[in-house]
Amino acid sequence: MLLPGGQSMVSEEAMRLMLQRDRASASLGIVLISDEPGRAILSMRVREDMLNGFEIAHGGFVFAIADTAFAVACNEDDHVTVGAGADITFLRPARAGQTLTAEATRRSRSGRSGIYDVTVRDESGATIAEFRGRSRTTNASLTP
Amino acid sequence: MLLPGGQSMVSEEAMRLMLQRDRASASLGIVLISDEPGRAILSMRVREDMLNGFEIAHGGFVFAIADTAFAVACNEDDHVTVGAGADITFLRPARAGQTLTAEATRRSRSGRSGIYDVTVRDESGATIAEFRGRSRTTNASLTP
Amino acid sequence: MLLPGGQSMVSEEAMRLMLQRDRASASLGIVLISDEPGRAILSMRVREDMLNGFEIAHGGFVFAIADTAFAVACNEDDHVTVGAGADITFLRPARAGQTLTAEATRRSRSGRSGIYDVTVRDESGATIAEFRGRSRTTNASLTP
Amino acid sequence: MLLPGGQSMVSEEAMRLMLQRDRASASLGIVLISDEPGRAILSMRVREDMLNGFEIAHGGFVFAIADTAFAVACNEDDHVTVGAGADITFLRPARAGQTLTAEATRRSRSGRSGIYDVTVRDESGATIAEFRGRSRTTNASLTP
Repeated sequence: MLLPGGQSMVSEEAMRLMLQRDRASASLGIVLISDEPGRAILSMRVREDMLNGFEIAHGGFVFAIADTAFAVACNEDDHVTVGAGADITFLRPARAGQTLTAEATRRSRSGRSGIYDVTVRDESGATIAEFRGRSRTTNASLTP
Repeated sequence: MLLPGGQSMVSEEAMRLMLQRDRASASLGIVLISDEPGRAILSMRVREDMLNGFEIAHGGFVFAIADTAFAVACNEDDHVTVGAGADITFLRPARAGQTLTAEATRRSRSGRSGIYDVTVRDESGATIAEFRGRSRTTNASLTP
Repeated sequence: MLLPGGQSMVSEEAMRLMLQRDRASASLGIVLISDEPGRAILSMRVREDMLNGFEIAHGGFVFAIADTAFAVACNEDDHVTVGAGADITFLRPARAGQTLTAEATRRSRSGRSGIYDVTVRDESGATIAEFRGRSRTTNASLTP
Repeated sequence: MLLPGGQSMVSEEAMRLMLQRDRASASLGIVLISDEPGRAILSMRVREDMLNGFEIAHGGFVFAIADTAFAVACNEDDHVTVGAGADITFLRPARAGQTLTAEATRRSRSGRSGIYDVTVRDESGATIAEFRGRSRTTNASLTP
């Protein structure tokens, strides 16, 4: 979290720790490209073991990279923010070997509720999926 | 697909072939419990490599089992039916070692469009997530 | 709210008062058919002034009857429960003169969050729309 | 539809005709502020008869202005495009006398499927609701 000013140090460190502990994202090969408050860009290569019976990426893995980008973008301060739900529309199939990019952006935040949009694209820039996440900020602290 | 009558043979075989070729569901350890037209029950054990930084199942994996149950339930005849999109609400966290069950049911089907509801529960029967999938039936045939 | 036992009196009265004060539902001609905790059935006649440029019921009015059924069903006790959001899928057009019925059912409730499904049907029983509402229970009291 | 070039004439005329025939939007007092391919801005004043029992705008009317903005934005060419479904999140209540503005923007379009985002704001610019519509383009022609 590249927050301006001194307080950013805590959150940046907290986010780094959270991602390091995130075995799911690591096992999926998800890589953090960039991260600032309310925004995040991640990438993931579609592996053979992510394909469904139609030889295209299983929806769960397309959702997973979008959901991870959402999680990074919505944890904007020291309070833990969780995904309460999400909607995803699949627009084009993704195939083995393609590198997907998920770009998350805060759309709205009001009190403890937030809306974040994530677009998943392939290498050509074509949109694979549109995801909209609903966040809920808790009282828990990101820093141990 | 336990369709009554002779025509079921084709679809049952087609579904079995589709699932066998589905490396994603296999790599996630998803097991088919039961399957009839418009309904499916699947299970999946939450592994350590499915946990996020908060020590709970990453949303992508909860989505994945729901999405697979949806795919099995919505492929009701010989035409390939694909997931056009879905909405998921996360109600309770799932933890490592728990076995999740996803139960998919057809809610509505009109022309090429369908709505299928999937409830993901833990071993105690508590609801982990509610998923609603939107299907689109194509002209392609499930049997090669 | 036909709650069993003495405490139901308060909620039933509260719901009746809430509906009496609901000028929106009254102006739409929405009629309460039945109401019990977690369930509600309402009806509405599609008027000429509810049609869009394609001579079918405007989506806003189909949403409105579903949303009202959701509001009645989710206010299950003395705490005010509000609609945090909803998803609707339009399956068939509704035409002027048809009487629509919206049937709301609680699907899940966990803490302050709930999921309620509403099916909107026409007189022949054909499904016009499937709605899923997300509720949030507040600390406010339904009784003044 | 302020399409550049000569072909715009047909679509602009078609859209104007469609809106003139839209009795629902007229009865709601919805006013078209601006309209170009993939974008539209509309406004609506919250009337007393749009209030629910909690003295705030009924969700159906907030949905209605968003859905109308979506319909205008997604009818980008001579083919009729319909709303297949939508998700809405209510972020703040709207009160009687407020003028709401709905701004619709195309997010994605692939084949016959499209995604359009609509933000509903009050006069102070605060977000009342976030709406995401799913469109489906038909073979029918907008011009009679």
